[in-house]
Amino acid sequence: MGVLVMINRPSADAAAHRPGAPDFEEADPASPQLSVLDLAATRGDGVFETIAVGDGYPQALDHHLRRFASSASILDLPSPDLAVWRRAILEVVDKLGPLPEATVKAVMSRGIEGDGRPTGWVHGQQSPDHTRARTEGIAVVTLDRGLRHDVERTSPWLLAGAKTLSYAVNRAAIREAVRRGADDVIFISSDGFVLEGPTSSLVVQRGDTLLTPGIELGILDGTTLGSVFDFAAEEGLRTGYAMLTAEQLGEMDSLWLVSSGRHAAPVHTLDGVPRPFDSELNLRMNAFLSRRQE
Amino acid sequence: MGVLVMINRPSADAAAHRPGAPDFEEADPASPQLSVLDLAATRGDGVFETIAVGDGYPQALDHHLRRFASSASILDLPSPDLAVWRRAILEVVDKLGPLPEATVKAVMSRGIEGDGRPTGWVHGQQSPDHTRARTEGIAVVTLDRGLRHDVERTSPWLLAGAKTLSYAVNRAAIREAVRRGADDVIFISSDGFVLEGPTSSLVVQRGDTLLTPGIELGILDGTTLGSVFDFAAEEGLRTGYAMLTAEQLGEMDSLWLVSSGRHAAPVHTLDGVPRPFDSELNLRMNAFLSRRQE
Repeated sequence: MGVLVMINRPSADAAAHRPGAPDFEEADPASPQLSVLDLAATRGDGVFETIAVGDGYPQALDHHLRRFASSASILDLPSPDLAVWRRAILEVVDKLGPLPEATVKAVMSRGIEGDGRPTGWVHGQQSPDHTRARTEGIAVVTLDRGLRHDVERTSPWLLAGAKTLSYAVNRAAIREAVRRGADDVIFISSDGFVLEGPTSSLVVQRGDTLLTPGIELGILDGTTLGSVFDFAAEEGLRTGYAMLTAEQLGEMDSLWLVSSGRHAAPVHTLDGVPRPFDSELNLRMNAFLSRRQE
Repeated sequence: MGVLVMINRPSADAAAHRPGAPDFEEADPASPQLSVLDLAATRGDGVFETIAVGDGYPQALDHHLRRFASSASILDLPSPDLAVWRRAILEVVDKLGPLPEATVKAVMSRGIEGDGRPTGWVHGQQSPDHTRARTEGIAVVTLDRGLRHDVERTSPWLLAGAKTLSYAVNRAAIREAVRRGADDVIFISSDGFVLEGPTSSLVVQRGDTLLTPGIELGILDGTTLGSVFDFAAEEGLRTGYAMLTAEQLGEMDSLWLVSSGRHAAPVHTLDGVPRPFDSELNLRMNAFLSRRQE
């Protein structure tokens, strides 16, 4: 069941759940900890981050915390007290003990309706074995995300660019991929631009350049992506942002879906069509992601 | 805190949480009942219904249960055992005791990841006083829903037409309305058609006809709407479905947002422009909705 810490004071802008108690405390993940009235459970009304832990080190933690605060702001949630959250995450990492790979999830919801105090918790557990996806690759289908590429600017209430608990569509998209005999999804905007995966960012290789869709397309500011760009610098590859169409994906030398837990999963099949990827570069990229300590 | 029942056996297609225990049991709504690993709380991955209770009678219950099962099917959830859910809802209604108005919420999530057993609960509580919205009306703004009117057909993984727990966007839209000095929202499809409210259906009056957008527009099959159409038959009004544009809303004689708890809220202001509504018809419609027993 992993390690669980409940946050007593998720935000400095809201009262603590138990005044005078520590900022966070370990709790039993096998026992119920949440009210059925919590807006996490009734409205998917909150934000989260999933942080990879490699050899006891929480990777890209600053970036995750920055994005956590940004998502909370987009949802008009009380601002998370990042010092408390950081300590809680480090405590969970510590209690997990020596594991080659783990993930830690930080969740903050709006709390119980009308109560005014957000609910927060951090849960860590050992990762499943992602070796096969990292080395052999994955089959991916492109699916319509339904939204135009510019909705973050035109229609901020659609919450594009925030990592919210309202992930039912992301999960339904992956079930649709499985139905089509694939493993994962690349979302396409309703006006034809390549966006991201339901739980990952897209990276493409064209010659000596790694490219990714820009966050102005209403997609998440990928934390693993930042590390991939650090890797590119180490490799002497150029990096950049691009508005790509679904058709252009077929012209790329390699495609990856990159995410905190699975790291870089190269795409071996796109919409049923086998495609190549640079295996050597892929192995070096995954090695870099596994050992990063920043 | 109301009355809470936890469902031990939400679906005949999945094992009970506690084999041999009753199908459902009353629980304390003031105590934690949910795991932080429940997909309701981590992914908004589940479905719900909110049922109005008028003078101890759960209104439009058959319709709610039908839609609950339909939403579950769209999300590939185990099929809810509607006989169990019906009994649980009636038990909560009974335990609420004599209240003029209450609402009962039924929730079924996918449960804990990998466990295979959905989580279910029914929670009932007294309703807030909706008199003002029902009699004086509400100010409404139109907001882009981001999705085309036809996504339910073209892109079923977007879950249009299902009442899911992933409601963060619905709540963000209402916050945007408040920011604009209004109370509620009418969503418009990205290609310009009028859809529904974030938690309500739209009804418009034009002469002797009540119209509503059809469910082929990827919107919910409104349970209160069904009762409004019964009311129309009693009044000798015609009813029908229409694809309306935002511009056409201004040409209607009356507009209402109708929902289980609030019943019929006439629109007195649309996008900042005051507009009339038929007050007598509105009062009769609300009286009908309050006293309905089917």
